[in-house]
Amino acid sequence: MNNRRVEALGDGIFAIAMTLLVLELHVPPLPATASVADLARELLHMWPKFGGYCGSFLILGVLWIGHHNQFHYIRRVDRRFLWINILFFMCVGFMPYCTALLGTFIWNRLAAAIYGVAIIATGTVLYFQWRYAATHDLLSEAATPVIVHATGKRILVGMRGYYIALAASLVNAPAGLALYVLIPVFYLRRGRIDEHLAARVPGASAEH
Amino acid sequence: MNNRRVEALGDGIFAIAMTLLVLELHVPPLPATASVADLARELLHMWPKFGGYCGSFLILGVLWIGHHNQFHYIRRVDRRFLWINILFFMCVGFMPYCTALLGTFIWNRLAAAIYGVAIIATGTVLYFQWRYAATHDLLSEAATPVIVHATGKRILVGMRGYYIALAASLVNAPAGLALYVLIPVFYLRRGRIDEHLAARVPGASAEH
Amino acid sequence: MNNRRVEALGDGIFAIAMTLLVLELHVPPLPATASVADLARELLHMWPKFGGYCGSFLILGVLWIGHHNQFHYIRRVDRRFLWINILFFMCVGFMPYCTALLGTFIWNRLAAAIYGVAIIATGTVLYFQWRYAATHDLLSEAATPVIVHATGKRILVGMRGYYIALAASLVNAPAGLALYVLIPVFYLRRGRIDEHLAARVPGASAEH
Amino acid sequence: MNNRRVEALGDGIFAIAMTLLVLELHVPPLPATASVADLARELLHMWPKFGGYCGSFLILGVLWIGHHNQFHYIRRVDRRFLWINILFFMCVGFMPYCTALLGTFIWNRLAAAIYGVAIIATGTVLYFQWRYAATHDLLSEAATPVIVHATGKRILVGMRGYYIALAASLVNAPAGLALYVLIPVFYLRRGRIDEHLAARVPGASAEH
Repeated sequence: MNNRRVEALGDGIFAIAMTLLVLELHVPPLPATASVADLARELLHMWPKFGGYCGSFLILGVLWIGHHNQFHYIRRVDRRFLWINILFFMCVGFMPYCTALLGTFIWNRLAAAIYGVAIIATGTVLYFQWRYAATHDLLSEAATPVIVHATGKRILVGMRGYYIALAASLVNAPAGLALYVLIPVFYLRRGRIDEHLAARVPGASAEH
Repeated sequence: MNNRRVEALGDGIFAIAMTLLVLELHVPPLPATASVADLARELLHMWPKFGGYCGSFLILGVLWIGHHNQFHYIRRVDRRFLWINILFFMCVGFMPYCTALLGTFIWNRLAAAIYGVAIIATGTVLYFQWRYAATHDLLSEAATPVIVHATGKRILVGMRGYYIALAASLVNAPAGLALYVLIPVFYLRRGRIDEHLAARVPGASAEH
Repeated sequence: MNNRRVEALGDGIFAIAMTLLVLELHVPPLPATASVADLARELLHMWPKFGGYCGSFLILGVLWIGHHNQFHYIRRVDRRFLWINILFFMCVGFMPYCTALLGTFIWNRLAAAIYGVAIIATGTVLYFQWRYAATHDLLSEAATPVIVHATGKRILVGMRGYYIALAASLVNAPAGLALYVLIPVFYLRRGRIDEHLAARVPGASAEH
Repeated sequence: MNNRRVEALGDGIFAIAMTLLVLELHVPPLPATASVADLARELLHMWPKFGGYCGSFLILGVLWIGHHNQFHYIRRVDRRFLWINILFFMCVGFMPYCTALLGTFIWNRLAAAIYGVAIIATGTVLYFQWRYAATHDLLSEAATPVIVHATGKRILVGMRGYYIALAASLVNAPAGLALYVLIPVFYLRRGRIDEHLAARVPGASAEH
C-alpha cells in the first residue's frame, strides 16, 4: 500500500509539472482584430517558449519513465526513502520555472546553466534513490544484481550527457540547447544496456 | 502494474488540462462597484472564451474516452509505447494554449487553424498508438480483429471530421468554429460502428 | 476497470478545482517593506476572496462526497454515462471562475446569481447522472430501491436550498451569500434521510 | 473502496499544492537580452521565494507522510471523518498562498505569523482527524494503543515546534523563519518515538 501512494503522489506531481509547462505559453499581446501576419510573426518570435514546452515535456517524460521503472522493483518503502522521493519531486516541480527562465532568456548562459543544473540535480536524486533502495533491502527479488547495476548505469549515462550539455551551454549556448533536447531522444532508442539486459534476462527489456 | 501507472499519469494530465481551461476565463477588469449591466456586457463580450471552455472540455472528453477505451484492451506496455503515450499527453497538455489563442483571436484564421491542427495531431498520435499496440502484441485477447479495426476506424472518422472543420475554418471562420464544437456532440451518439459492434460482439458496445 | 478510471479522472478534477481556488488569492500589491498595519488592512479588505475560498471548497467537498457515494453503487458505465460525468466535471471545473467573479464583485447581484446557477447546474447534472444510472441498470445490487430514492432525494433537498439561496441573493445579496456558505454546513450534519436509512438498512449510513 | 478515494483526492491535493508553489516563482522582469550579471542579481534578490518553495515543499511533505501514515491504519470512513479530511485539504490548499505572502513580505511579522498559524492549523486538524478515527472505531486492528498514542504524540511534538517557531517569528523574524525550515528536517530523523516503537513493535517503524 505504501508504494501505491508514493506512486500516486509521483504521478500527480509529474502530471501537473508537465501540464503547468503550458502556462508559460502566453497569448501574444495583440488586439483581438490582429491580422494573420501579425499573429504569425508574434508566434514565431515565441519559438524558445514552444521549444521549451516540448523539450521539458520530453525530459520530464524520461524522468517519469525512470521513476516508473524503479517502482517496478520496489517492494517496500521506509521513512528516509519517502524523503528522498519528496526531494526528487521537489526537483521535478522546479522544472516549469527553469523552463520559463530559459524560454525568456534563451541566449543567456546563466539561464541555460540553471536549466542544466536542475536536470542534473533531478537525475542525481533519482540515482541516489535507486542506490538507497538497493542497499537498504527495499527491492523485490526480481531486481537481480544485473538489473540493479544496469538501472543505475542507465541514469548515470544520461547524467553524463547532461554534464556535457551543461558544459557546452556555457561555451556555446545554441549547441548546449540542442543537446538538452536531443538527449531525451537518445533515451527513446533501445540502448545497449537494454539489449544487454534482453540477452541476459529474457523478456525483461520488453516490458519496461 | 505498468498499465496502471500510464493510466494514472494520463488521468492526471487530462484532469489538469481540462481544469486549466478555466484559467483562461479572466474576471472582467471593472471596479468592484460595477453595475449589473456593466458586468453583464463585459461577460457577454467574453463569449468566445466561454465557448472555448465548453468546446475544448468536450474535445478533451472525447480524447479521454478514446484513451480509456484503448487501455481497456492493453495488456502490457513497452518503452516505445510509453513514448507514444508521452507524445499524446504533450498534445493534450497543449490544448489549453490553443483554446486561449482561439478565445482571444476568435475571427483570426491562423488561430482557428492552429486549434484544428492541434486536435488533428492529437487524434493522429492516438491512432498510431492503437496501431502500434495492435502490431506489437500489446493487446489482450479480448481485442478481436473486429474490435481492433472498429476502434481504429472510429478515430479516423473523427479525424476526417476535423480535417473538414479545419478546411472550413480557413474559408469561413464561423462555419469552422461551429464544426469544431459539433463534432464531439456527434461522438456522443452511438455511432454506426458501435451498433455494428453491438450486433457482432454482444455486450461489447454497451460497456464502453 | 472502467469505474476506476472515471473515479480517477473525477478525483483529479476535484483536487485541481479545489486547489486552483487558491490562485484567486492575490498577494496585496504593496512594497516589500510594507508595515504590519498596511498588510493587515489590505488582507482584511480581501475578505470576500478568503470567504470564497472556504465556501467554494466546502461546496466542492459536498459535490465530491456526492460523486463518491454514487460510485460506491455503480457497477459498470456506458458511453452516455461517461458523457454525463464529463458534463458534471465541466461544471465542477467552472467553480473557480464563479468564485473569482463573486470574490471580485461581492455585492453584485449578477455575480451572486451566476454563482448560484453554477451550483444548481452542477447538482442537477449529478442528480440526472444518478437517475440515469438507476434506470439503465448500471447500479450494483447493493443499491436497493430505498437507497436509490434516498440518494436522489438527498441531492434534491440540497438543490432546493440553493434555489432559495439564489432567490435570496437576487433580493438581498448578504442573505444569499450567507446561505451559500451555510448549506454545505447543513450537509455536514447527519440528515434525517441518513437516519431513516440507518434505521432501515443497518450499517449503511455509517459507511458513507 | 471509500478509503482509496479519500487517499486519491488527498494525493491529488498534495501533488497540486506542492506543484503550484512553483507558480510563485516569477521570471525576473528584465529584457530578453539581459546580461548574466543582471539576471544573477535579480535571481539572488528572489531568495525568499526560492526559500519559500523549498521550505513549504518540505512542510507539505511532512504533512503528506503524516496523512499517509494515518491511512495505513484506517479501515473505514464515515461522513464526519470525510469532512475533517476536507477541512484538512482546505488547509493544505492554502499553503501556496501563505508561501507567496511570506515570499513577498519576508521581514513582515504578520506574514510570518500567518504562515505559522496556517501550519499549526493544518497540523491540528490532522491531529483531530487521528483522534476522531481512534475514538470512532475507524482504525484497523493493527493500530494498537501504543501506535495510536505514538502517532498522535508525533504530530503534537511537531506542533509544539511550530508554536515555538511562531512565537520566535513575532520577536525575531529571521530566527522564526529558520525554525520553520528546520523543523521538517528534524522530522526526517528517526525520532525517539520511532525507536520506542521499533523496540516494542518489531518491524513497524521500518515500514512507515
